[in-house]
Amino acid sequence: MAVRASGPQSAEDRLIARYFRPLAKHPGAFGLIDDAAAITPPAGADLVLTTDVIVGGVHFFADDPADQVAKKALRVNLSDLAAKGAKPLGFLLTLALPKAIGEAWLKVFAGGLGADAEAYACPLLGGDSVRTPGPVTISITAFGSLPRGSMVRRSGARPGDRVVMTGTIGDAALGLVQRRVAGAVKRWRLDRTERHHLADRYLLPQPRNAIAEALRLHASAAMDISDGLVGDLGKLCAASGTTAVIEVERLPLSAAARKVVAAERARIDTVLTGGDDYEIVCTVASEKLAPFRAAAAAAGVVVSEIGSMVANSGMPRFLDRDGKVLLFKRPSFSHF
Amino acid sequence: MAVRASGPQSAEDRLIARYFRPLAKHPGAFGLIDDAAAITPPAGADLVLTTDVIVGGVHFFADDPADQVAKKALRVNLSDLAAKGAKPLGFLLTLALPKAIGEAWLKVFAGGLGADAEAYACPLLGGDSVRTPGPVTISITAFGSLPRGSMVRRSGARPGDRVVMTGTIGDAALGLVQRRVAGAVKRWRLDRTERHHLADRYLLPQPRNAIAEALRLHASAAMDISDGLVGDLGKLCAASGTTAVIEVERLPLSAAARKVVAAERARIDTVLTGGDDYEIVCTVASEKLAPFRAAAAAAGVVVSEIGSMVANSGMPRFLDRDGKVLLFKRPSFSHF
Repeated sequence: MAVRASGPQSAEDRLIARYFRPLAKHPGAFGLIDDAAAITPPAGADLVLTTDVIVGGVHFFADDPADQVAKKALRVNLSDLAAKGAKPLGFLLTLALPKAIGEAWLKVFAGGLGADAEAYACPLLGGDSVRTPGPVTISITAFGSLPRGSMVRRSGARPGDRVVMTGTIGDAALGLVQRRVAGAVKRWRLDRTERHHLADRYLLPQPRNAIAEALRLHASAAMDISDGLVGDLGKLCAASGTTAVIEVERLPLSAAARKVVAAERARIDTVLTGGDDYEIVCTVASEKLAPFRAAAAAAGVVVSEIGSMVANSGMPRFLDRDGKVLLFKRPSFSHF
Repeated sequence: MAVRASGPQSAEDRLIARYFRPLAKHPGAFGLIDDAAAITPPAGADLVLTTDVIVGGVHFFADDPADQVAKKALRVNLSDLAAKGAKPLGFLLTLALPKAIGEAWLKVFAGGLGADAEAYACPLLGGDSVRTPGPVTISITAFGSLPRGSMVRRSGARPGDRVVMTGTIGDAALGLVQRRVAGAVKRWRLDRTERHHLADRYLLPQPRNAIAEALRLHASAAMDISDGLVGDLGKLCAASGTTAVIEVERLPLSAAARKVVAAERARIDTVLTGGDDYEIVCTVASEKLAPFRAAAAAAGVVVSEIGSMVANSGMPRFLDRDGKVLLFKRPSFSHF
């Protein structure tokens, strides 16, 4: 154990300064040499604030490439900003690092982080780094802005609204099974492209920030899907005091996921409850569906209508082609 | 290893909702049931953003009371806001928890956090909690506001400015030594009150938020002292491109710290470089010294003049009563 007063800094800290300071280009980051960052919020804006922590061996594999780990840590936060209709402003980072993490890892990590900070126009504003006897632990807090009072809540869904989601569902969870369960690859008979597709979808979320404005203008409720569609949609329904009926046949599955489910029918459970999708599920009033679709298309984001909201409470119902309700082993539920 | 897609939630998560949701009274926290929080920044304000992470076994002892741990995690952030002249607006929390942490610990932790959130008018706005195979890891991001462009930087010190600090220096570092080094208590001959004073100062920072406005109005530069006065003042001097001359005899030592240094002269090194003080060191132009002192007194914060800035660069010089420069074994240096 190494309980200490925060004392003089190690060579490690110098390395962190070397690799992270170049990312802090925002004037309010003060080159990471001050105690805090400062931002001037856009006039008439609300600030949207979100935070997520990922832990080595829990949310990513210890041997995942460091640049991918950095991107994942940032993107899970960007995904929340996207779902709320907010434009990224910047982020703060805390890193708890075990001794085994050296210069090479940090350099690659900072490279990945910097690339995504540029790509998503979300600059590093500040942070803190410490030693840990545990695994690498990365906590990011991201800030976004939007016109006052316009955050897209989970609670705005109304009976009659259409349920729409971005991208495809279940790929990340299947990518994780493929990595962990011996024999899965063989059983599923996926080709190389399909295997890579699933693996990539687990390794690296593709947050839908391109669609944030369209959500803000047209969605009645939205959230990102991080803990599985079944459980997350359940949270949206609970917050809205209404529920959803989903037609399973309309769910957007990738070619790879379709092949998996054809080979192993029970994997539909993994697809719908497995998590790590980082797609967005939202509700849109019927009359706004056409403009929402047009805005999504203009933003280059594929969206699919998967069901509708009904005047009722309780968990959403997922119906198969015969109208039978699917039951899941582990529906998740709302928590903080 | 437990790499997983983020799946359905455990009993643990329900407990977290039970104990933390009551703390989320700010309307923009949405009762912790949304993906993000939203705040409307005060008109004409800048937002000040800071983040710190503390790790069990590194920044606190595993058996420290959970309410004290929670308070420490929040207060180290509040201290940064104070030093920058900002008024707290709220905070986000991420918790990485090992399995051994149960309901009793979380309840006490949340109790301490809630008490400080009230005391410092800094509400919980949101957060994230995950499992870790490592130690308890707590990351907090705190937000404050101040009039546009008025953040007190590290870089504003000018030759001729007086160097002033709040409270007393070195108590926390001595409190840690007292806890860890066998024989220290006996050698120092402290009475019970003095021992408790040092122990408390290590366990629980007393951030100087009461003085934030006085700093904003009168200080040319400021920072909180977390890594030891010598190293931290060095960072302020480096950022300002000037340096400080400190008269060691003028440094504010508690009765306990005076007794320690009298018994063991070398402990002056611990006092000045040991860290965890969470006092504020600032520079004030001569003509502003009287109003700054008056404002500090009105806020109930003791301040002491300890030296002055000189037109020079390099590390600050600490002079003893004979004008000799003190040398330290481990001066610290700037990092992120």
